Amino acid sequence: MAHSLAAKGSWRLGGARNQLRGSWTAGRPATILQAAAASTAASSVRVLDERTAPEKLRDVTTMLFDCDGVLWRGNEIIHHAPEALRELRRQGKRVLFITNNSSKSRVAYTDKFRGLGLDVEAHEIVSSSYCAAAYLTSVGGFGPGGKKVLLLGWTGVEEELTAAGINFVGGRHLPLPHMDNIQAMMDLRVDPDIGAVVVGWDPNFSYSRLVYASIHLRELPGCLLVATNTDHADHIGPSPTGHARMMPGTGGLVAAIEVTSGVKAINVAKGGPWLLPYLLSKYGFEASRTAIVGDRLDTDIHLGKEGGLVTCLPLTGVTTMAALEALPEAERPDLVVPSVAALAGLQP
Amino acid sequence: MAHSLAAKGSWRLGGARNQLRGSWTAGRPATILQAAAASTAASSVRVLDERTAPEKLRDVTTMLFDCDGVLWRGNEIIHHAPEALRELRRQGKRVLFITNNSSKSRVAYTDKFRGLGLDVEAHEIVSSSYCAAAYLTSVGGFGPGGKKVLLLGWTGVEEELTAAGINFVGGRHLPLPHMDNIQAMMDLRVDPDIGAVVVGWDPNFSYSRLVYASIHLRELPGCLLVATNTDHADHIGPSPTGHARMMPGTGGLVAAIEVTSGVKAINVAKGGPWLLPYLLSKYGFEASRTAIVGDRLDTDIHLGKEGGLVTCLPLTGVTTMAALEALPEAERPDLVVPSVAALAGLQP
Repeated sequence: MAHSLAAKGSWRLGGARNQLRGSWTAGRPATILQAAAASTAASSVRVLDERTAPEKLRDVTTMLFDCDGVLWRGNEIIHHAPEALRELRRQGKRVLFITNNSSKSRVAYTDKFRGLGLDVEAHEIVSSSYCAAAYLTSVGGFGPGGKKVLLLGWTGVEEELTAAGINFVGGRHLPLPHMDNIQAMMDLRVDPDIGAVVVGWDPNFSYSRLVYASIHLRELPGCLLVATNTDHADHIGPSPTGHARMMPGTGGLVAAIEVTSGVKAINVAKGGPWLLPYLLSKYGFEASRTAIVGDRLDTDIHLGKEGGLVTCLPLTGVTTMAALEALPEAERPDLVVPSVAALAGLQP
Repeated sequence: MAHSLAAKGSWRLGGARNQLRGSWTAGRPATILQAAAASTAASSVRVLDERTAPEKLRDVTTMLFDCDGVLWRGNEIIHHAPEALRELRRQGKRVLFITNNSSKSRVAYTDKFRGLGLDVEAHEIVSSSYCAAAYLTSVGGFGPGGKKVLLLGWTGVEEELTAAGINFVGGRHLPLPHMDNIQAMMDLRVDPDIGAVVVGWDPNFSYSRLVYASIHLRELPGCLLVATNTDHADHIGPSPTGHARMMPGTGGLVAAIEVTSGVKAINVAKGGPWLLPYLLSKYGFEASRTAIVGDRLDTDIHLGKEGGLVTCLPLTGVTTMAALEALPEAERPDLVVPSVAALAGLQP
């Protein structure tokens, strides 16, 4: 998920937490919409259209949007998504964009939004890179002159830590000896100024980095382990040849560090316990008047259910009608719509 | 755990599965033995001495020995361990040595045994590197001309796979492009001849290796994930300065691959379900006449209890009397002894 990923034509990226071997469900929109239409009649899951959906959001003042699978797929905009956001803003609703992707900062994300024709301000974007910095700020002790971060991550988290005035070592650069012998491991010096190990998507992850992270967590009492997210894998592709695959996610790196250090990570993204209370408190939301719009049951909809939000699932992402129908009533989203457009009264 | 580790003076290595932050319990033998003596009177755990222990092993025909913490600590032999083994062999007992360490092959281990004055034949050693090869042989399809292994591991597993006639790619060498962009990940070719990913201690572990392993497991139906062990961390040290630390174990690497591939690993070492039935069948043991001698409750003693073996714990390793006393009666070892010497009727 380097910067370069944003320039890869029609390829898609999206977090996935519970993938099984060989199966992935990133949807082709046409297929999904046809399936949805065909099964609505016989199904107990009702898909609301652009005439029926807006009424359900009448009392909602704030809307939290997942991005991939909701506003875009890869670098392809969902039809009428820009117009839908504009209409919702016009109705006076506040919008925020929440993504578990840690590879970009909020500022870098604004470029992606604007490149796709979506109006946005950086402060409306809640990327997991930002969440890591916000979490440390909320904990205290990490500002200018405070404790340092050992970062196993990429530019997104680097930029957000810098923006928050938090010093870090690591990130793209962490020169370490190759730890294939005890001497190298015994010689490693613990940096006593480090107060947290932050883990994001890290293409430079290595056994040596694992040693360094683990030793700090074991030998510095109170050193925190912060996961930008715990997504298991991310979709990439299809490529121009139609090939598609799953790329290992940050969750695998977090698991390795948890197991070898004995320290449990705090997940600051969707799926973890910190994010929603933080957002409610920071922005002064009222949960019952806040909606979350996302395509994933295990992160977006789960988060909304836990927090008492209005939950909205557009069928433009990874969740199929069949998956919805298999759910117990209580776990289903409050609103299922063909796409985000319907929420604003627009045709998909 | 490179080969070079064997030459590090008095340093110690030992698997540990359930370590907590900052705490490790590799014992100083004098301290442990004093503690054991002091607490025996008041304790409900009885420590058998060289007069009382041998009788309990009268009907035992086979003895499975853990190594570190039982026969040696690091490169320091436990007092009278060579004589104890000789005496037990003289009594007609068959001995096997079982270690979760995957960095050495059985042949390489014989050098370590003999260097410490312990008589051994390579076929008596059951290292987890050997177990990985034996497991694949038992599964079938991996012999000469059969499926290949993708190895994330070190010389021990390399040598055992070679000895079993199993082809592999990886090991110490697996040149891969640096996977910091989608193009590199999309360009990776899956090798359809690979039938298993084997994970051992791997100082070359990297995000690129994680991608390669994960893609094979996801895209090749039936591709196996084999863990040489799932130990969380290994003790290293103390160094000449008295410093000691925990080195990340194979279990962390296994966890990362499990999470990102969605495939559950089979653990072929102590702690997993495969080893004991395999040994019983291969060697024709009778469980009730087989004893396991080990210093770890969660691997050695647990394995023995599960399999209906006679369980023996010498107090020369990581388990303290306090830990034993805290256990429910049913989880305690059948025999607790000051050291392996007592089992053979020798003074510690």
